[in-house]
Amino acid sequence: MATESSPLTIAQLAELAGVSTATVSKVVNGRAEVSSETRAAVEELIRLHGYRRQRRRSTPTALVELVFHALEGDYPVEITKGVAQVAHEHDLTVGISDLRRDRSAADAWLDVVLRRRPSGVIAVFEGLTEAQREQLARSEIPLVLLDPADVPARDLPSVGAGNWNGGLIATRHLLELGHRRIGIVTGPDSAVSSRARLDGYRTALDMAGVPADPELIGRGDFFIEGGLAQAERLLRLPDRPTAIFAANDGQAIGVYHAAHRLGLRVPDDLSVVGFDDMPSARWHLPPLTTVRQPLTEMAAAATRMLLQLANGERLARNRVELATELVVRESTAPPPTPAG
Amino acid sequence: MATESSPLTIAQLAELAGVSTATVSKVVNGRAEVSSETRAAVEELIRLHGYRRQRRRSTPTALVELVFHALEGDYPVEITKGVAQVAHEHDLTVGISDLRRDRSAADAWLDVVLRRRPSGVIAVFEGLTEAQREQLARSEIPLVLLDPADVPARDLPSVGAGNWNGGLIATRHLLELGHRRIGIVTGPDSAVSSRARLDGYRTALDMAGVPADPELIGRGDFFIEGGLAQAERLLRLPDRPTAIFAANDGQAIGVYHAAHRLGLRVPDDLSVVGFDDMPSARWHLPPLTTVRQPLTEMAAAATRMLLQLANGERLARNRVELATELVVRESTAPPPTPAG
Repeated sequence: MATESSPLTIAQLAELAGVSTATVSKVVNGRAEVSSETRAAVEELIRLHGYRRQRRRSTPTALVELVFHALEGDYPVEITKGVAQVAHEHDLTVGISDLRRDRSAADAWLDVVLRRRPSGVIAVFEGLTEAQREQLARSEIPLVLLDPADVPARDLPSVGAGNWNGGLIATRHLLELGHRRIGIVTGPDSAVSSRARLDGYRTALDMAGVPADPELIGRGDFFIEGGLAQAERLLRLPDRPTAIFAANDGQAIGVYHAAHRLGLRVPDDLSVVGFDDMPSARWHLPPLTTVRQPLTEMAAAATRMLLQLANGERLARNRVELATELVVRESTAPPPTPAG
Repeated sequence: MATESSPLTIAQLAELAGVSTATVSKVVNGRAEVSSETRAAVEELIRLHGYRRQRRRSTPTALVELVFHALEGDYPVEITKGVAQVAHEHDLTVGISDLRRDRSAADAWLDVVLRRRPSGVIAVFEGLTEAQREQLARSEIPLVLLDPADVPARDLPSVGAGNWNGGLIATRHLLELGHRRIGIVTGPDSAVSSRARLDGYRTALDMAGVPADPELIGRGDFFIEGGLAQAERLLRLPDRPTAIFAANDGQAIGVYHAAHRLGLRVPDDLSVVGFDDMPSARWHLPPLTTVRQPLTEMAAAATRMLLQLANGERLARNRVELATELVVRESTAPPPTPAG
């Protein structure tokens, strides 16, 4: 039978199944709010007759959806600037969503996005789940990951920065100043960007013949409070570090506060290196030495990739990585006592 | 003639005038790129025959357009959070535009917005020109001003904060600590929010019987650099202030840097009060005493007003003002020497 008849539309499937078109639409779009019996019945009909995706009734909305795990600090501002810059050239709206540090909020968000039919989605830091990505793909909405927390699947376009190299140059800068007890406050273990920075740190120590002391590794979370807590632990060690590499600028502020609490001066008693080079970094006291990650350029690159995909073009490369560089300011100096 | 025939559509006007429908559309929407002869010809036809606005072909896009004068610092983040919160409840997209400190960019922006047909526009800080507002009104796109730089016309909905009161409580706090030489770094003279804060400062001094010294008033621009330059001038005065009220948190950071350059410690040698209470204020060293302006709540209120307008409802009040409050942290203390 299935081979003879042409595939059915949603309306025809709905009639055959005795359910609403909305229900059929939910099934074919993989959405959750359908009973398993109904889902099974509709899927059986599709298996028998086939399903003909309707042509889009409307062109997609000229909209780039930018979704943040959290709207906090100036990280989202730097990224939005880059997206807005490219979107503006193409008369596209930049739509912002804030998941408020809540992974589970992504499902509800996705339902709304699917209805809006944007030209594409840029997911910042926290990528989407496999199921969510498939839903976007089924709806032919392109997706680009920006500064992704996890290593993306090979076919998933993404833009990142030279994180490993950044970790290396930050640590090497401290080694060159004469530091040997160098601590690190990482991001969350689940974030590959943090893992890469940690590995760069380890390799820099190893290449300098300085043994890595596991006690000097503080596991942070990329938020200021986490940086403060970890740095305070490191600075209370009997043989405390003379320098700390914080895996982002926010945590570097936490390190400043930990030092302040313990009466240590930056950089006289403690050198601090951050990571990001947010606009505020040069306004800290002392101005922060940090690794520049070009977030605005990264966001612009991600938007250009998204527009290529939305136009049905192929990308030259699925993974774009922009270089990081060291920006030396006033938070780093030689260690207070000659290194052992 | 005009009284007998029914008013003409854009297509009919275009045919009569021998121009494209796009040109007629530009004339009726008050856009600029039409020669004055063509404009006159079309306007004459409209005068003779009348013009029948076509029914909207589509419902407005479920989109709140949020336009910023500049995407800088955490001010845009605080505002976007509030808008996103309310928009999310109504499945609305939040669209962000960045005018990059460029007033003239607003014309090009408006052209794009008119094409997008958003549910409404929230203009932050820099309001639009009278002509731009009229264009929005003609297109039946509601507009709410948020933290407007100028006092809005009576019929224009807006949300602001208790700026005058904020200036008063900031200055009174310093007076209560014993300060008498109190400087201020204002925002731009064109911003009513800055004027109100300055007036609150003057009134607090006056009520305490402390004569206002015009030399202690630094005219800033709401950016860090401006705060730094003005504070440096104040602190180099022979009879320098023992306290400075900065009219926003960014400028307070500029004051910290000016003090640092001159070897003055905050708060031992100089007390500093900011205005805004951005999330970063508690992470400055020392943590900043400041006047809290509830930007996120203000943005949420503006969005709710916009949705009411988009639904054709009337607003109970055109002007909503949220209260400011003093947040005392560690940047303020009694003056170093007993006040004269």
